[in-house]
Amino acid sequence: MDDLILHEDRRSGNCYKIRLTAALLGLAVKRREYDIMKGDTRTPQFLANVNANGRIPVLQVGRRFLPESNAACFYLAEGSELVPSDRFARADMLRWMFFEQYNHEPNIATLRFWLCYVGEANLTQQQRAQVPAKRIAGEAALDLMEQELKDREWFVGDSCTLADISLYAYTHLAEAGGFRLEDYRGVCAWLQRIAALPGYVPMD
Amino acid sequence: MDDLILHEDRRSGNCYKIRLTAALLGLAVKRREYDIMKGDTRTPQFLANVNANGRIPVLQVGRRFLPESNAACFYLAEGSELVPSDRFARADMLRWMFFEQYNHEPNIATLRFWLCYVGEANLTQQQRAQVPAKRIAGEAALDLMEQELKDREWFVGDSCTLADISLYAYTHLAEAGGFRLEDYRGVCAWLQRIAALPGYVPMD
Repeated sequence: MDDLILHEDRRSGNCYKIRLTAALLGLAVKRREYDIMKGDTRTPQFLANVNANGRIPVLQVGRRFLPESNAACFYLAEGSELVPSDRFARADMLRWMFFEQYNHEPNIATLRFWLCYVGEANLTQQQRAQVPAKRIAGEAALDLMEQELKDREWFVGDSCTLADISLYAYTHLAEAGGFRLEDYRGVCAWLQRIAALPGYVPMD
Repeated sequence: MDDLILHEDRRSGNCYKIRLTAALLGLAVKRREYDIMKGDTRTPQFLANVNANGRIPVLQVGRRFLPESNAACFYLAEGSELVPSDRFARADMLRWMFFEQYNHEPNIATLRFWLCYVGEANLTQQQRAQVPAKRIAGEAALDLMEQELKDREWFVGDSCTLADISLYAYTHLAEAGGFRLEDYRGVCAWLQRIAALPGYVPMD
């Protein structure tokens, strides 16, 4: 495999997903740090050379650049035990990864970002108006996860897949966004299951 | 392959993606219609038997249910010419599909839904306050697509992949959400390229 460089902000759960995937697979990834609060990913150089969408993470594979956290995880893990070999199960894994980006991250990660990094006092009026809806939608995402984990240990099949890693990243940080994880017992047990995996690395 | 049933609302671009993928591959898919405006996907029966997340589309494969439009397209197309055989290109295809669900659909599809189906007069105050930001973000998504299509015919490699189909669904409906497609000449040429594919079916 070509040299791997992760363009990241270490406070981002989306970036952590990729480091966790690499760690579980025993892959070496170099790290290049950006500060999203200082606009490091909106510079003309970043937009021209790393990601025209102005976002991290981006996984650099040799001279090629791959944005989108879940796509980067898929690139690293395809063919490993983190991606099911059964066709339906593989698509079902992607189903949870799309759920994560659509229903989970925009609510649970965004509230963490707003409350921890932007700061409640600095929110725009429009952001402030969205907090209650994001709270409800984030709780709905956690409810759905709890329901799924009632009868099973992992989201797809009977071992950890990228579905779990993808959802783990911002779920294990959810309290920083004001969510009460103790209300979700199945989710809490699943979080511990992931943290106990061989090769697991915590967020910095 | 097991019998395929698409649980859908025919006005949804997310549902159309799956029908277009199946049509391009020559796969027969039965259709079961729901009216999301009447809450058909929030009934106890739907939540218990089809999708606990209360959303369509869901692709039924025999007795199994697969939510999330892009996951369903992946299930149908894996191993076909719509999914690149190269590992990096396959991940890059997923990159555009995640972009579609994160940066494109929540802006371009949502404004279409609000303006065409809910109706501007019926928007809540909070929805109304989000329109300008969604307009800007939707235009940014179209700008990025335009930039990408300046030097290439397809998003990944040199033929149509699921990246194109996924982005096509709501892009070709963008004017219904108040976006001016004529401002995006590369995008318009690409839309025509897709509509000319053998097996292409229009939205109902």
